[in-house]
Amino acid sequence: MTDKYILLATCSDKVGITALITDVIAQHQSNILHLDHFTEYDDSQNAEGQLYLRLEFEKIESLKDDLENTLTKHQINYNLFDNQHKTKIGLFVSKEDHAFNEILLRVNRNELPAEIVCVVSNHENNRQFAETLNIPFYYVPNTEDKEVVENKILKICSENHVELIVLAKYMQILSDHFVNHYPNQIINIHHSFLPSFIGANPYKQAWHRGVKLVGATSHYVTSDLDEGPIIDQDVIRINHRYNVQDLRKIGRHVESSVLAQAVEYHVLHKVIVTANHKTVVFT
Amino acid sequence: MTDKYILLATCSDKVGITALITDVIAQHQSNILHLDHFTEYDDSQNAEGQLYLRLEFEKIESLKDDLENTLTKHQINYNLFDNQHKTKIGLFVSKEDHAFNEILLRVNRNELPAEIVCVVSNHENNRQFAETLNIPFYYVPNTEDKEVVENKILKICSENHVELIVLAKYMQILSDHFVNHYPNQIINIHHSFLPSFIGANPYKQAWHRGVKLVGATSHYVTSDLDEGPIIDQDVIRINHRYNVQDLRKIGRHVESSVLAQAVEYHVLHKVIVTANHKTVVFT
Amino acid sequence: MTDKYILLATCSDKVGITALITDVIAQHQSNILHLDHFTEYDDSQNAEGQLYLRLEFEKIESLKDDLENTLTKHQINYNLFDNQHKTKIGLFVSKEDHAFNEILLRVNRNELPAEIVCVVSNHENNRQFAETLNIPFYYVPNTEDKEVVENKILKICSENHVELIVLAKYMQILSDHFVNHYPNQIINIHHSFLPSFIGANPYKQAWHRGVKLVGATSHYVTSDLDEGPIIDQDVIRINHRYNVQDLRKIGRHVESSVLAQAVEYHVLHKVIVTANHKTVVFT
Amino acid sequence: MTDKYILLATCSDKVGITALITDVIAQHQSNILHLDHFTEYDDSQNAEGQLYLRLEFEKIESLKDDLENTLTKHQINYNLFDNQHKTKIGLFVSKEDHAFNEILLRVNRNELPAEIVCVVSNHENNRQFAETLNIPFYYVPNTEDKEVVENKILKICSENHVELIVLAKYMQILSDHFVNHYPNQIINIHHSFLPSFIGANPYKQAWHRGVKLVGATSHYVTSDLDEGPIIDQDVIRINHRYNVQDLRKIGRHVESSVLAQAVEYHVLHKVIVTANHKTVVFT
Repeated sequence: MTDKYILLATCSDKVGITALITDVIAQHQSNILHLDHFTEYDDSQNAEGQLYLRLEFEKIESLKDDLENTLTKHQINYNLFDNQHKTKIGLFVSKEDHAFNEILLRVNRNELPAEIVCVVSNHENNRQFAETLNIPFYYVPNTEDKEVVENKILKICSENHVELIVLAKYMQILSDHFVNHYPNQIINIHHSFLPSFIGANPYKQAWHRGVKLVGATSHYVTSDLDEGPIIDQDVIRINHRYNVQDLRKIGRHVESSVLAQAVEYHVLHKVIVTANHKTVVFT
Repeated sequence: MTDKYILLATCSDKVGITALITDVIAQHQSNILHLDHFTEYDDSQNAEGQLYLRLEFEKIESLKDDLENTLTKHQINYNLFDNQHKTKIGLFVSKEDHAFNEILLRVNRNELPAEIVCVVSNHENNRQFAETLNIPFYYVPNTEDKEVVENKILKICSENHVELIVLAKYMQILSDHFVNHYPNQIINIHHSFLPSFIGANPYKQAWHRGVKLVGATSHYVTSDLDEGPIIDQDVIRINHRYNVQDLRKIGRHVESSVLAQAVEYHVLHKVIVTANHKTVVFT
Repeated sequence: MTDKYILLATCSDKVGITALITDVIAQHQSNILHLDHFTEYDDSQNAEGQLYLRLEFEKIESLKDDLENTLTKHQINYNLFDNQHKTKIGLFVSKEDHAFNEILLRVNRNELPAEIVCVVSNHENNRQFAETLNIPFYYVPNTEDKEVVENKILKICSENHVELIVLAKYMQILSDHFVNHYPNQIINIHHSFLPSFIGANPYKQAWHRGVKLVGATSHYVTSDLDEGPIIDQDVIRINHRYNVQDLRKIGRHVESSVLAQAVEYHVLHKVIVTANHKTVVFT
Repeated sequence: MTDKYILLATCSDKVGITALITDVIAQHQSNILHLDHFTEYDDSQNAEGQLYLRLEFEKIESLKDDLENTLTKHQINYNLFDNQHKTKIGLFVSKEDHAFNEILLRVNRNELPAEIVCVVSNHENNRQFAETLNIPFYYVPNTEDKEVVENKILKICSENHVELIVLAKYMQILSDHFVNHYPNQIINIHHSFLPSFIGANPYKQAWHRGVKLVGATSHYVTSDLDEGPIIDQDVIRINHRYNVQDLRKIGRHVESSVLAQAVEYHVLHKVIVTANHKTVVFT
């Protein structure tokens, strides 16, 4: 694999932005490997557009300063990533193991360019599997005040240099204080096809409504519960024979794959959260 | 195709019901071609179950009375259909033509054992296509009181011996009075994956929420708007590039296919509405 | 969960078979929980049909002999299962871990009514994970003659009372001698949408052909390689950006889920292999 | 909708191509609305890459000459389209109407920026529907030599300025002579998930093999039957209850949608055929 830089950038749309950026890259003899470009207009299509860009290009050390200066000078918001750096993940889990194992195993299989630097759980039952893969496991029970618990966890994340928190069925609502430490850096899996069945017990709600598909939604966590920007969704067909327990069981498979897909998009630097709380996912 | 009877039956579950029915059929030397059987327990699994049955068997004239007597005697609710009878459909449409054409063409292609006996519309634009296929087209504009309009339509349906009303984007809310004339005999297509985006403008709602899939839901119409028993649902993947207009466009395809699928299930006598306002669909 | 019997039965179709069976069940006061019925005619529809039946009914000890006598007397082939018995699985794996882990974890999570009684591998790398879950791991390298190796494995399976062999990417072709020991009791996952890309390196073949979906196929193993009865298939959408390595990676997910689905169908006794080498899967 | 140009371009990959093109566009004060970029390496990843580019940008008359000169000077192969121009389609059909109607109706509904300038058929039965929409219908029966028939059809296409031929179940094999007149401008729908079930009667082949999904493939027509570059594919789930006739029926729906999708990609100028007979589809 070539060493490369990945650039995510956004600004108000105007003539010449792409030329500006690609010129700098070309001047340094770096080859562009991928470029994707999206301009969003609001619904009325009257307003000025917002430009979202993703580029992959050969890593040439000399170009970094030049590129960053150009982007800054033109007031373009950006993140520049080096594809040799693996995103450091803090994996949070409660009792259920399915989404947790899916993430662990995909990382272990090198399917995701990421490193799980710590597992945080309010139960002990997933310790063994984490430790089998030599990943530090932190047991932080909910036996104290939420503030105390969260501060312990923030400290763990900080000490482990966590860059992305993955809630693999963590089942605890994080405070705004916590969430603000990791803006657009916490991914959750919600066990329904949002915005259907918001709130508790979505599979029971789904059974009562008699839906013919159940789904799952992965999203960034914001202070607004179940309202964070959606990264990915998928559904699976069911029929009248599925009782609530069957829905939970089949739901696990779609939860696991939808969460893993969102984590993959994030660690490959394919996602930008837009001004209107949605995501651009450059697939 | 063999001449056959199709039986849909439901009763409180108890020992021996299936034996009872299959015995009568066997005594008349009729071969069973299909039998499907579903018992639903309520969520708590404490209560008595409810049995739902579907049978296809060779049509032997002599067995009909015997079977109906047995079913009645044992307080089994049932409908007995003859597969040579084509369901008479009243097809309702407003301006948009996609779901309307899908149903017309599938019937015309003999994919559905049904006959469209009348088209009812509050616009004239779909007249030509209906008349090309020699189907009577009734223009009933919304220029009068809803009650007057509905009575006109009920008369049209009655005169044409309509057995199933298909709302192929009819876009009018039917009164309880109307709906009660056709219990579980009116199928609607809702342009969202219910219960997401209930109410007006679901594609605009979907765009604002940033969902990654859009869907459609076909359901029986009850007096409770958007809450009727769901017959079928499907979704289609979208991405950030889809604006509201694009969602409407791609949505049409899933609306057409989900409505047609529901109509197919109904006219093949594969659907039973359960006591708790859901459907059993014997696929 | 109710104790129940599950009956799979097949015979030449004739009048009265279902009545015959359900009568015996009713006489013993056992309630039928599920009944599904399929008659297959050959393509020309001239010939006599073949009947395939699946029943679930309450376990009443007294009815077993009576039922078996009736089935035997009427020359109906059958298997009668007790739902309290968990199928004993021998899980075979080579180096790759994805399908192997999927099966292990689903069984461990009690999603499948099965017990993995042994793992057989020609590599050591999956030992740790098996032993973490306290499952005996047998390392049987391919360093000896195939016949010697297979006899060792047959002995392991026999000693562990294996009832189903699951080839979770075992990557070895089993001899007819071996296969004949487990007729319709060995499930394999093939990494393509059969019959596309039979033979070696299907993902490379798929890349060269430029397909837009890749798939996987789970099937019973017969002496005819890649031609065994198909149990389940699924596909996943790809695009021109996927190179051969990407296809292998995404293919793993569909391989895992399609294999697990087939194993689920088998251990729930939902599959019958037909006379013409296909499967009836009562979903 | 903004007036815009769409550029499809390909050349051997080298540093600076994208900068070169976007510079010309920026110099003329044209805003880029979309840019997608793909570099393909051969399987071994040793060779030089091939670059494929798609751009949408505001139509500024003055830039056209400048851009074309630049592209030519740097030996970049390209096609430049004006989004106000509707692709002129010649729609070919035999007896079956489903794919034919799907294309006609989508064009009629303005879902596709295209104009159907003629229908060519070797049967009369689809005449009425074409003429209802005021599209010239040419009946060209297969009663003469293939060469004579094809020359008649080529003349019809030429006189109607056909730019894309859509074979909506035309069921005739076109000669190399014919195909060479429309390189990568003839789209066919094949009624199987290629490369499965090449040749005659794919649904019968599928039934005999017992597959659990059936599919369809849209592809450009080349002189190598069933081997043309694949544009799109999709599948639909079936089960053991589907006989050959049922497969044909359900297959029609997937055939129609896969063909329409391919035509949409083509007329939106989203497809480039690669050097190795595959397609890049910029979705």
